[in-house]
Amino acid sequence: MTYCVAMALKDGLIFASDSRTNAGVDHIATFRKMHIFEMPGERLIVLLTAGNLATTQSVISLLEQRARTELHNLLNVQTMYDAALLVSDTIHEVITRDSRNEAITQGIDLTGSFIMGGQIRGEKPRLFNIYPQANFIESTLDTPYFQIGESKYGKPIIDRVVHFETPLAEALKCTLISFDSTIRSNLSVGLPIDILRYQADSFAPVRPYRIEETNVYFNRIRESWGQGLRNVFSQIANADWFDKL
Amino acid sequence: MTYCVAMALKDGLIFASDSRTNAGVDHIATFRKMHIFEMPGERLIVLLTAGNLATTQSVISLLEQRARTELHNLLNVQTMYDAALLVSDTIHEVITRDSRNEAITQGIDLTGSFIMGGQIRGEKPRLFNIYPQANFIESTLDTPYFQIGESKYGKPIIDRVVHFETPLAEALKCTLISFDSTIRSNLSVGLPIDILRYQADSFAPVRPYRIEETNVYFNRIRESWGQGLRNVFSQIANADWFDKL
Repeated sequence: MTYCVAMALKDGLIFASDSRTNAGVDHIATFRKMHIFEMPGERLIVLLTAGNLATTQSVISLLEQRARTELHNLLNVQTMYDAALLVSDTIHEVITRDSRNEAITQGIDLTGSFIMGGQIRGEKPRLFNIYPQANFIESTLDTPYFQIGESKYGKPIIDRVVHFETPLAEALKCTLISFDSTIRSNLSVGLPIDILRYQADSFAPVRPYRIEETNVYFNRIRESWGQGLRNVFSQIANADWFDKL
Repeated sequence: MTYCVAMALKDGLIFASDSRTNAGVDHIATFRKMHIFEMPGERLIVLLTAGNLATTQSVISLLEQRARTELHNLLNVQTMYDAALLVSDTIHEVITRDSRNEAITQGIDLTGSFIMGGQIRGEKPRLFNIYPQANFIESTLDTPYFQIGESKYGKPIIDRVVHFETPLAEALKCTLISFDSTIRSNLSVGLPIDILRYQADSFAPVRPYRIEETNVYFNRIRESWGQGLRNVFSQIANADWFDKL
């Protein structure tokens, strides 16, 4: 499984992805799920991936290879919309290619999910959720974030605290709490977590940050959040009608 | 969708179920999902249901009807294990019956999930999770609760605060917080919530309690929990490495 989140907020973009892949609990490995295409000063495009690893890797490899060799590629499309369309076309291409022999792919889910965000000069930062069906939606002021993979455990806290105006540092804190809830409940989501933040209109080179088991801040968050929840819980009174049940 | 939780703790049992059913967002209705079989002084068996409503209703109707007319029924089986087996057999019977004509049931999921708990004199209180496949597992000291339906949003808080020794009043409080998280994140889970608590070895008649929109305690929980979470969140510092990202 996988857990990835990205947010498109007033001040910029936040991306986070775990790095555990598994094909059954006895086949677990670490793969980076955050992929960066950038031309500092001009554009940044970040892709987060979930789903069939053969498919998502192939899509990323083709996008990278073609950014060096083909005329129409992620480093020269005019808009983020066109970038999403190019990713979508590449997903179609890979899945069509890999599913051409029904005898060997029957019953296998070849689909992948992608979150794609970034900024191309001339546009605001934009964020897209590319579905397993390869069609896509864009984030809005009302729904400024997307999740892919094991999204449910970590959704309630984001819904409660993140809105379009949330400062990036707080959005990152919320993202890490969301990861903590997910990792606690689903063994197949695991550290390290790759983090990236992009300040709107900066077009600066980005440096993904990797959170490992020993990360002091992440461990402090896990501890204070857990303790804080238990405190809030204990401060809420029991139901006055409990004894009448 | 549905959300049901039940817990088998040191002091007894807690059951909770929402009452929203839907066949598409334009076809939403209220149905009780908590069903009680009792002989005060001798036994209590509670069933919570999720999944195909035609299947789960038929299973409950047959179990009720047969408790009045047949020799082998939920009101006279010797153990909770045998009760689980009887429910399982009835599920098999209903699904076999309703799926006999492939031409009309193709592609329809006829399965249902059940949580069954209670106490029969001579045994401790016991709790079972009956899967859509109609086989079942029993709760343990390590895992003293089960959920069916839309379980993920409301799982992290239970994992953090409930263990076998948790007093029933606290377990109920946690259950309601778990419902709050679920209802906020999934439109298809909705009030009213039916609640039942059973004190171990009491064999007393039970009175399910219904939480409606206007329930003062539930609304206070929703408010204090949300406010409490935001307070804990704001007390956690931002990452000291955030500016280096």
